[in-house]
Formats: sequence, C-alpha cells, structure tokens
Amino acid sequence: MLNTKGHLTSAKGFRAATAQVGIKKGGSHDDVALVMCDVPCAAAGVFTRNVVKAAPVMLSQRYIKSGKAQAIIANSGNANCCTTTAMDVAEAMCRQTGNALGIAFDDVLVASTGVIGEPLMLAPIVNALPSLVERLDSANGAAVATAIMTTDTHEKQASVEITIDGTTVTIGAVAKGSGMIHPNMGTMLCFATTDAAIEANLLQKALQDATEDSFNMVSVDGDTSTNDTVFLLASGLAKNPPITENTEAYHIFYNALKELFIYLAKEIAGDGEGATHLLICDVRGAKSTDDAKKIAKSITGSSLFKAALYGADANWGRILCAAGYSGASFKPEEVTIHISSAIGRVMVCEKGGGVLFDDAFAGKILSESTVTVEVDLNEGEGTAQAYGCDLTCDYVRINGDYRS
Amino acid sequence: MLNTKGHLTSAKGFRAATAQVGIKKGGSHDDVALVMCDVPCAAAGVFTRNVVKAAPVMLSQRYIKSGKAQAIIANSGNANCCTTTAMDVAEAMCRQTGNALGIAFDDVLVASTGVIGEPLMLAPIVNALPSLVERLDSANGAAVATAIMTTDTHEKQASVEITIDGTTVTIGAVAKGSGMIHPNMGTMLCFATTDAAIEANLLQKALQDATEDSFNMVSVDGDTSTNDTVFLLASGLAKNPPITENTEAYHIFYNALKELFIYLAKEIAGDGEGATHLLICDVRGAKSTDDAKKIAKSITGSSLFKAALYGADANWGRILCAAGYSGASFKPEEVTIHISSAIGRVMVCEKGGGVLFDDAFAGKILSESTVTVEVDLNEGEGTAQAYGCDLTCDYVRINGDYRS
Repeated sequence: MLNTKGHLTSAKGFRAATAQVGIKKGGSHDDVALVMCDVPCAAAGVFTRNVVKAAPVMLSQRYIKSGKAQAIIANSGNANCCTTTAMDVAEAMCRQTGNALGIAFDDVLVASTGVIGEPLMLAPIVNALPSLVERLDSANGAAVATAIMTTDTHEKQASVEITIDGTTVTIGAVAKGSGMIHPNMGTMLCFATTDAAIEANLLQKALQDATEDSFNMVSVDGDTSTNDTVFLLASGLAKNPPITENTEAYHIFYNALKELFIYLAKEIAGDGEGATHLLICDVRGAKSTDDAKKIAKSITGSSLFKAALYGADANWGRILCAAGYSGASFKPEEVTIHISSAIGRVMVCEKGGGVLFDDAFAGKILSESTVTVEVDLNEGEGTAQAYGCDLTCDYVRINGDYRS
Repeated sequence: MLNTKGHLTSAKGFRAATAQVGIKKGGSHDDVALVMCDVPCAAAGVFTRNVVKAAPVMLSQRYIKSGKAQAIIANSGNANCCTTTAMDVAEAMCRQTGNALGIAFDDVLVASTGVIGEPLMLAPIVNALPSLVERLDSANGAAVATAIMTTDTHEKQASVEITIDGTTVTIGAVAKGSGMIHPNMGTMLCFATTDAAIEANLLQKALQDATEDSFNMVSVDGDTSTNDTVFLLASGLAKNPPITENTEAYHIFYNALKELFIYLAKEIAGDGEGATHLLICDVRGAKSTDDAKKIAKSITGSSLFKAALYGADANWGRILCAAGYSGASFKPEEVTIHISSAIGRVMVCEKGGGVLFDDAFAGKILSESTVTVEVDLNEGEGTAQAYGCDLTCDYVRINGDYRS
C-alpha cells in the first residue's frame, strides 16, 4: 500500500536532519540534509549518463561500488559541478561527515543539485555538521524532501509497506525534480531507504529495473542533468529472511519499489518547471517494448504538443508527428489516439486519420490537472508509459534568469 | 555573391504566381503558389525522415524519382497530412496543375505546410489555377516567399550568382520555417531554382550535401515535421557547359548552393516561433565531424540554454551539460567556451571549469540579435555549425492555440 504521508525515514533504522546554511541565495528553506542509518546498509545507486558528471556523482559512483553505505550528505542550491574545486569539496563533504558520524568516509554518499559552474562553499556545510548529527531523528525524513528542492514547488515523498515471508517491510523515499528532467535521469535526486534484508547486488538490480520504468520515463524539457542520482539503502532491520533472486519475496519487493518510484516520477513530471498539467502517455500495441518507450518518450518530449496541452488544444497531429520522429517503426495508418482525464475520454484519431470529435469537450479534458494520451499502434504487444508536463511561459521565465 | 534581394525566379526560365484562396483561416496573405519553368528541368528533392509523411511528400518523392520536373504547386495553412483524403487531394493538385499548364501530371511537384489532420479543400486551389497560370511571371518570385509562410514573421529568400566556364549562372530560392524545425528537416519548405545545366543525379548529390550542412543543422524546437521538403530545379537555360562531377565547375556550383542554403537556414532559425535571437553554435576541436555535429545540435536544441539566452543569462553550465548528453564522446576537462556577438567576445569556461568573467558584459553580448556560442573541445579536427534560437513565452503562446 502506497502511503503518500510516508517518507525517507519510514523504514526502520534511518534518521535525518536538515539545516539552512545559505547555499541557496535568498532561499527560504533548508539547503543541507544528512541521512544516516544505525547500521551499515546494503547500498545501490543509479546515476546520470551525461558525459559531464558532477563531482558528487563521480565520487558516489566510486564509493558505492563496495555495495555498502551508511549515510548520505546532500545539498541544494549548487550542483558542485564544473569548478576546479568540485572534487575536493565533494571528498571533504564525505570525509567530514564520516568523521562527525564516526564512520568511514567511503560509507558516506554525496549528492548536490543546483547551479552548475559556481564553486560550492565547503565551510557552511562542515560547520553545520555537529548540529546536524546532534539533531538526527527518525521524525525528520519529511524535512529532507524540503531541503533538496530547487525550483520544485512542493515536496515529493512517499513510502510503501509490504509483507515478506510474514514480516512487515517498509520502503520510503524522497525525490526532487523540476527542470532539466529527461530520460536517463533528470536533475533529479531520489533517496530511498528500506529495512528489508537484501544483498547489495540484488538491490542494485531492483533499483536499476525500477528506475528504468519510472524516473527514466520522465521528461520535463529534454535536458539530461550532470547530477542525477538515485540511492537506495537497505538496513535489514525488518529482520525478514534475506530476499533472494527469482523468488516471490523479490517479486513483492520489486513491485513495491516500482510502485513507489512511479508515484514519485509522476510527482516530478507534474511539478516540472512552470508546469500546469501532468501528462501521461500510454502506448500499447507497439512491435516491441523498446518501440513503445521511444514513442511514449517522444510524445511527452514534444515541445509542440506540450505547448498545445498548455493551451488545452487537442492538436492530435502533433502527437502522431512526435511518434513519427521517435525512431520507432510503425504503420501510421494503423494508429488510434485517445485523450482522457478525470472527466472523460475521447477518440481523436483512428487509423492514422482525424475523426469527428467534440472539440469543446476535448478542450475540457485537456484542462484537467492530469491528462493521459493513449496511443494504440495496433501492431504488437509492446507497451510503455511516460510522464511529462506542459510547456508554459513560466518555464521560460524560470529558466531565463535561474542564476540571478 | 549572395543577393538578399534575389529570389525564386531570379534564374532564367522560371515564372511564378500566387493567390489567396482561403485555406489559411483569417489569413492576411496569399496561401497558394505556382512555380513553373519554360522548359523541363533536372530535378532533385530532399524530404522529411519522419515515419509519418504527409501525402504531398510521399507523392513528390515518387514523381521526382524520374529526375525531372517542370512545376511546383504549393499551399500554406494546411499540411494535407493524416486525413482520409490527403493522397487524393495531393494527386489531384498535380493532375489539375499539369492540365492547366499543358504538362504531364508527374512533372508537377507538390508541397503543403500548416495544420495536420484537417482535410485540405481541393476546390479553392483548382478554381484558382486558371488565374494563376495566366498571371505566371518572372517578377513574382518574391510573392512565393510570402505565400508559403505560416507563423513566419518575414519572407526568406535570396539568390546567388556565379560564373561557370565563363557563363553566368544563377541559383535562387525561397524558404519558410518557424515551428517544428529540427535536424533532418523542420516544417520547412525550400524551393530552389537554377539555370545551370547539370544532370539530375549530380543535382541530387549537391542538394543532399548542401542540405546536410544547412537546413539539417537548424533546430527551433526539436520537433521534426511530417512535411519538410526541399526542391531544386535546374533549367539549363544559362547554357553553361554541363557541370560534371569532381570538377572546378561543380565545386563552384556546390559552394554557391551551400552558401545560399546556410543563409536561408540562419534566416529560418532566427525567425523560429517566438524567437528574439538567432543562436549560432560553432564547435571545433572534436574527435570527428559527427561528434561536432551532435554537440552543436544538442546545444542549439537545449530548452534550458535557449531559455537562458532569452533571459540574456550567461549560464554556460547548461552549454557544457548539453554537450555532455549529446551522445558525442569528449573530455569535459578540455573544453573551452566563448560567447560572442557583434559587440564582443568573452570566455566563460576554460578546461571544463568556470573562469572569472564580466557578467554584465556577457549579458550585453547575449542581448544582441545574433549570438554565437563557440565550443572548442581541444581534442581533434572535427568542426560543425548549428543554428537555433531562444525559447520564449511567445513560442508557448503561438503553439498553445495554433489551430484556432
């Protein structure tokens, strides 16, 4: 069961603390977060595929190879990327956090999000560490969701509870998104924790697979960030019999993780910079899953259709056009398109051509906060779902002077 | 010499006429254009690579296989795409035009641009044909530039004159662009004519190569249209000795064609929907031309940098980030970035990191109407240039209710 009030420290053993140290210029909320577990955890991570990687990404990739970790130090307001001191600062963040917690430096993971190319000041973070450590509490998980926000307009967090071999297991997570969100990870961060007992390699597999169908299906603006990071730490404190591969237990765990991530992916897409609508694109009947994914991503990534959605204009030609340049192969003359939302569903295209539909009603459907575009290619069994948002003037305004 | 007052009928033998027939709802200018040559021409064409192709694209692709053509019939306001009658209408346009001109139906090429999925009315076009034929005149080339505009804010045309083996040869062209412009042809049309004597296969090679480095390096919004078309007709009426492959004459002809197309590509990019700046991205030092192209296109296609350009914000981190997800491989720590315009040039990134620069002056550079981003990868000999524009609120407004 998904619990939208749940969060990062819902799982047993995890505590957190946050602070406002002034990294985010004129920021109104906390900008540093510390997460730690009472015991060493099995750890998994997924990172941006951008050739230009921020220092915290490169460092966390190195540390997580051991398959274990016990803490996360994170900041918002500065990406710690493309500066001469970025790696020094990232290393110092882990070392100092490790010292403050009494654990090894390489059991600390690090993540940053914010402006690229401006030096991240180390001192304010280090100076805040003693107080952060002192205030670590399992009640503070929700505060982490706030501390990692950049242009996000609201916190993104949830947890899910499952029963594995008679034992209750919890997975909790926080995420942030907003701009620069695109397949292969946006500038998004997600920290997830679980008290499940599960070995690191299998945890990594679950994380990768769940990310593929959730965060990697989100597009806000086509830009893939330098800092994207998903961490998943497993404490084992639920004391379930360790989850092993190809078992019913793994299946339950994986599905719960995926459900949690898809929920957060939708939260991120719907809160894209300047967005007024969550756009879900549901593709079926494709020749393969890969083709379905390409088409779903292409439609949620089309600036033209995103602008039409903003204007509540049922311009379905742009949907078909975006499918056409997706790189997937299909027969245009077989395509059916519906648009739907909470108030109804209408067919706008059949066999690749327009059909008569009630334009005013279609406009009302598109005016709802969550809009689904359903594309049926009528050729095979491939399905995929992608998540996006509309393109608005506010997106342009937010990004026209992000640095200032 | 490029002549920005030249146009489609600057070359010997070509005449044109235009009319307003009411395809463009509430349109204030002509929406149908007829171009014809006094003699049969060698003909070449390049078309959209979108899987979803408009009927006029499919039909012109078929007709142009013969390597000859004598006329073009075109309309704006409706793409004649994705309707049950699209192919019938396209075929009838060619047949009726052929009849009216007394030439074969398959010597007539056809192109349409505008909204997708709404039936194009045939009668208004057919009814206008007698008057169009009667008014064909070599003085009307410029009118074609107007008649093919959709959301373009100004006409795009030019000609170039060269001397081949002592004979003056002219190439003239009109183009339209605006939205849905992206590598592999935008919703752009370009009709080019020349009086050069040149065989069709070689004409096709010249057209393809010149398109590759010009129109295919333009991105307005990442959407590849269903209707993109470039036609090039050669009348031979300049009476030059026929141009053959790998000769000085071909070299001169090709370079002139490329110069003309690059001029028009910049015109299209700078007049992208809602655009207030032309963005030129100049990449050098890449490991290969292919890598340089990927990076140049990725930067001109980045919504985030485009929004920053709109805000005159020298957010160079977004430039490096866009290079990073382009798919090209390079060493971030070797990258140098300058921004420049008519009033000056400033280095914003060296060896992959930020440098101290005058932010106010950088803002002034970015406020000029043409802005160049120079990226030097310092690794090899690969170079490329791509053309784009900024992302503005007007883009969103224009595309929020394009159909209405």
